[in-house]
Amino acid sequence: MPTFVQIIEFIGTFAFAISGIRLASAKQFDWFGAYVVGVATAIGGGTIRDLLLDVTPFWMTNPIYLICSALALVWVISFGKELVHLHNTFFIFDSIGLALFTVVGVQKTIVLGYPFWVAIIMGTITGAAGGVIRDICINEIPLIFRKEIYAMACVVGGIVYWCCTLMTLDAMIVQCVSGFSVFLVRILAVKYNICLPRLKGE
Amino acid sequence: MPTFVQIIEFIGTFAFAISGIRLASAKQFDWFGAYVVGVATAIGGGTIRDLLLDVTPFWMTNPIYLICSALALVWVISFGKELVHLHNTFFIFDSIGLALFTVVGVQKTIVLGYPFWVAIIMGTITGAAGGVIRDICINEIPLIFRKEIYAMACVVGGIVYWCCTLMTLDAMIVQCVSGFSVFLVRILAVKYNICLPRLKGE
Amino acid sequence: MPTFVQIIEFIGTFAFAISGIRLASAKQFDWFGAYVVGVATAIGGGTIRDLLLDVTPFWMTNPIYLICSALALVWVISFGKELVHLHNTFFIFDSIGLALFTVVGVQKTIVLGYPFWVAIIMGTITGAAGGVIRDICINEIPLIFRKEIYAMACVVGGIVYWCCTLMTLDAMIVQCVSGFSVFLVRILAVKYNICLPRLKGE
Repeated sequence: MPTFVQIIEFIGTFAFAISGIRLASAKQFDWFGAYVVGVATAIGGGTIRDLLLDVTPFWMTNPIYLICSALALVWVISFGKELVHLHNTFFIFDSIGLALFTVVGVQKTIVLGYPFWVAIIMGTITGAAGGVIRDICINEIPLIFRKEIYAMACVVGGIVYWCCTLMTLDAMIVQCVSGFSVFLVRILAVKYNICLPRLKGE
Repeated sequence: MPTFVQIIEFIGTFAFAISGIRLASAKQFDWFGAYVVGVATAIGGGTIRDLLLDVTPFWMTNPIYLICSALALVWVISFGKELVHLHNTFFIFDSIGLALFTVVGVQKTIVLGYPFWVAIIMGTITGAAGGVIRDICINEIPLIFRKEIYAMACVVGGIVYWCCTLMTLDAMIVQCVSGFSVFLVRILAVKYNICLPRLKGE
Repeated sequence: MPTFVQIIEFIGTFAFAISGIRLASAKQFDWFGAYVVGVATAIGGGTIRDLLLDVTPFWMTNPIYLICSALALVWVISFGKELVHLHNTFFIFDSIGLALFTVVGVQKTIVLGYPFWVAIIMGTITGAAGGVIRDICINEIPLIFRKEIYAMACVVGGIVYWCCTLMTLDAMIVQCVSGFSVFLVRILAVKYNICLPRLKGE
């Protein structure tokens, strides 16, 4: 039986892969290209984190992430046109994935003995770097550098994780509160169209 | 005296570097830029593989790969215009390189004790990721995501490697059959213009 | 009290981050995106070097580099329009950073026991790869592949480092001479508009 965290992780990986595959399909990628972009979106952030932390990339120990991305590809091939109607559902799933990935990234870094400021960066990389790799693969300027609060939600979640730990709360509670704060910041930012200020070009 | 595998490796590195340098020259890169793109094409895939496997990148233990890429640069500078007539020769060399790089990638991963599904991915990364890095450096959408069977030939070769190993064939035979299958898939795909289906954008 | 090298390092990091943030601002990135591009420019080269050398990325052991990049962001936000007049100052700072980063990269590689040809490459990566990552992030063809002597100054500095070491000069002198040669090559190349030849596209 999969645990609750595993189910969440599956949903998050699926949602991230879908986002990559859909953007690849808009550029007329073939099935292989779309799969690679989907996988890169889903596991790219965690892979960069694991390379920086010098541990074996998480997806090399369990094929579930690649299988999950393959299911996402089958899903998009089968129901391509109808996915537009599921826009809000994917947004919620993507936000759940973002929250979980951030918490996993922070936690893994702390366990390895790094200070909290490194853990916050690793949580943000885990959540948001996959989308940057995706956008580089499809030759677009990374979306999260220009629009919407996305990576900042991870930063907030990391800081909440830190504060909760300082208050010596139970580990399970820390993770839930942190993940929920990522989710909440992301949802509120989109709902109320909150953006960071832009720099004015010269 | 170089061994047979070393000669093949030299040819493959040379062909991969040429492909990078020629695309860089189409974008008016200077000699340095063209060399970097050539090197990145030739050793980029193996470098990503070695970083993921946490071993020293192969080219850092032997300067032959960088020298070989430098020879490719000298060649393009000297015979630039005439290379067009060698199109078919380069295609054959490139396919030989693809086959060898795939086999090397699969074998190295298996020796390190990883399961076969990881080895197939590493073989594919060794063969095909260099071309992705090349295309990102020249600011184009990676070719292998949109056209032709290229990385899929590596995947087929990896699966053949696995099947042959399951049949407990001799290691040398396994490698030859696997490499030949990569070569054959690549040649046939180009000859008969076989492509993967494309995703239809929304 | 910070040492002389630390002050130089601070200046170099600041100048590199400014260059990333200014290019990001020309593409209307938001504050977060500009910060990420600034950080990537400042620490990207050293991070790739450390991943290849299999040591902990330098910025994960000391938050000063991220703080320094944050100060660069505050600076650009505050004085954006006026920075144009400081063009020459930034050019000098950037060249100082390039020189120091190259020397640090060469030295770190030698200390780890690698041969000199690897050290020269690592010095060049430390100095110049950040700018490549910056240009990929803003979806432009990397500047150093097409214009000006930039990475070649690092290569020259690395070779000077090697020659001085062969002459068994004192380590401090070797580093100063090597760094100064990077600085000089860069300044002279810009002053006299010296470029590498370009490849003619087919």
